[in-house]
Amino acid sequence: MPHEVLALLNQPSADAAPHTEGAAPFAFADVAAPQVSVLDLAATRGDGIFEGISVGYGKPQAFEHHLQRFARSARMLDLPAPDLALWRQAVLAAIEKLEPGDEAWVKTVMTRGVEGDGRPTGWVYATRSADFSRVRADGVSVVLLDRGYRHDVAQTSPWLLQGAKTLSYAVNRSVFREANRRGADDVIFVSSDGYVLEGPTSNVVYRRGNTLLTPGPGLGILDGTTQVNVFRYAESLGLTTGLELATPVHLAEADAVWLVSSVRLAVAVTAIDGIAREVDTEFTADLNAWLKALEQ
Amino acid sequence: MPHEVLALLNQPSADAAPHTEGAAPFAFADVAAPQVSVLDLAATRGDGIFEGISVGYGKPQAFEHHLQRFARSARMLDLPAPDLALWRQAVLAAIEKLEPGDEAWVKTVMTRGVEGDGRPTGWVYATRSADFSRVRADGVSVVLLDRGYRHDVAQTSPWLLQGAKTLSYAVNRSVFREANRRGADDVIFVSSDGYVLEGPTSNVVYRRGNTLLTPGPGLGILDGTTQVNVFRYAESLGLTTGLELATPVHLAEADAVWLVSSVRLAVAVTAIDGIAREVDTEFTADLNAWLKALEQ
Repeated sequence: MPHEVLALLNQPSADAAPHTEGAAPFAFADVAAPQVSVLDLAATRGDGIFEGISVGYGKPQAFEHHLQRFARSARMLDLPAPDLALWRQAVLAAIEKLEPGDEAWVKTVMTRGVEGDGRPTGWVYATRSADFSRVRADGVSVVLLDRGYRHDVAQTSPWLLQGAKTLSYAVNRSVFREANRRGADDVIFVSSDGYVLEGPTSNVVYRRGNTLLTPGPGLGILDGTTQVNVFRYAESLGLTTGLELATPVHLAEADAVWLVSSVRLAVAVTAIDGIAREVDTEFTADLNAWLKALEQ
Repeated sequence: MPHEVLALLNQPSADAAPHTEGAAPFAFADVAAPQVSVLDLAATRGDGIFEGISVGYGKPQAFEHHLQRFARSARMLDLPAPDLALWRQAVLAAIEKLEPGDEAWVKTVMTRGVEGDGRPTGWVYATRSADFSRVRADGVSVVLLDRGYRHDVAQTSPWLLQGAKTLSYAVNRSVFREANRRGADDVIFVSSDGYVLEGPTSNVVYRRGNTLLTPGPGLGILDGTTQVNVFRYAESLGLTTGLELATPVHLAEADAVWLVSSVRLAVAVTAIDGIAREVDTEFTADLNAWLKALEQ
């Protein structure tokens, strides 16, 4: 069975015409062959949306949450609504075709399609995950980087698409290079007015006493699918959970800080801007075992 | 002869390996067929750069300026340096193959390539231009929209890539939809601290008395290839030119305002946020005739 699987959707949205009249809803395709037009707005403008869904022991995790977020991103970009029943079916079929294993992940991508055509392009890509065991055990050092926007920009200026998971992620990659130049592994974004936001590919979670916290509400950050599950886990242990408008001081004074994301799961933050900090190795390991085994 | 031409580069940068050892420097390809991998970082992350070059009467305009800006964008994104001699050759070959006409344009795209591969992807796409005669004659109504960033963000936070021409342009498209919702045609971005920046696909130029002005310096906006030529034209008429940190009041009080860009050239701004304003029809027409005939 293959290590990676690609399925192309014939009609990613019921609100737009199919690519081929009467064709199957989706078809498997060769990952090694080119599949996207140079005129597709994904390739020319980063004009589309995506989700990255973790697959633990063959089960897509936080699946409905991911699909709902995908639909929400589409609304924020004025894209036609994804046909979630079809996307669900294509994701499950791609997983079934993939070589089994403990950990895999699936990316769903919907673009605005070829400019002027009016039909979105959609594909599902599934692959075995890289081995994250080391980073989950060792954690990451992070730097705080200015995102440039005020913390309330999603309310004042929704056209900036903050909180949508778009294909325009050049900055989310650029900040990793800046982190590496500073000798760090990862990034936590801070708003121009000094509030903690999120990582470029993760949410921030921190513990203060018996409470697990995440920045919010109303920050124009991604509604974290893994963060929600981390809170469920914490609540199952009797911890309280909550949202808080946090500054870097809140992180410095926290008992532990994590970056949480769908595929890498939870990684401890071991240092912020070069200042080492406490980690909770046992909690992190138990949390990741729980997240891996999760079905919802 | 074809209405559109696509050329794929075998080795977009001399600092990275070719895609096929010993192959021709570039090859023409079928525009209608898919040419980009779903794993290319252009399609998944908007991680790449582009230029759009106007071709007037068969001559690429501001060609060296575009190529230098392409190289500058590559540096800002830590991409390997584009082999400008090869890109120049591919652009000229694509134009030569294109059906002749008064106006055409060429897009150059270089992406970071397939994730983990290390070789950038590069293509040149040439096509006949749409007919812009009406918008050049009638002008556009614009709305002022917050870009969310302070005017000095390129200096304080270079990882935000302001001033690079990247493939992460979802916001530059989203703002057109916001303008349309407000009954306008186009957009002028304003910094979060109130300075006029640029359009999503253009630079702003305005006239006050005998002086033509453009916002600057140090605003993290694109170094406008057409704006430079507009200034050359103005100077040939005896007007003075300059840069100015401008607020919306400067635009409201200007004698005329234009959005200038490579392919659409100069269009008069006929209204800002619903308030109609003076236009200079004759100057605009003469300027566009001069820009169309330009060879450098």
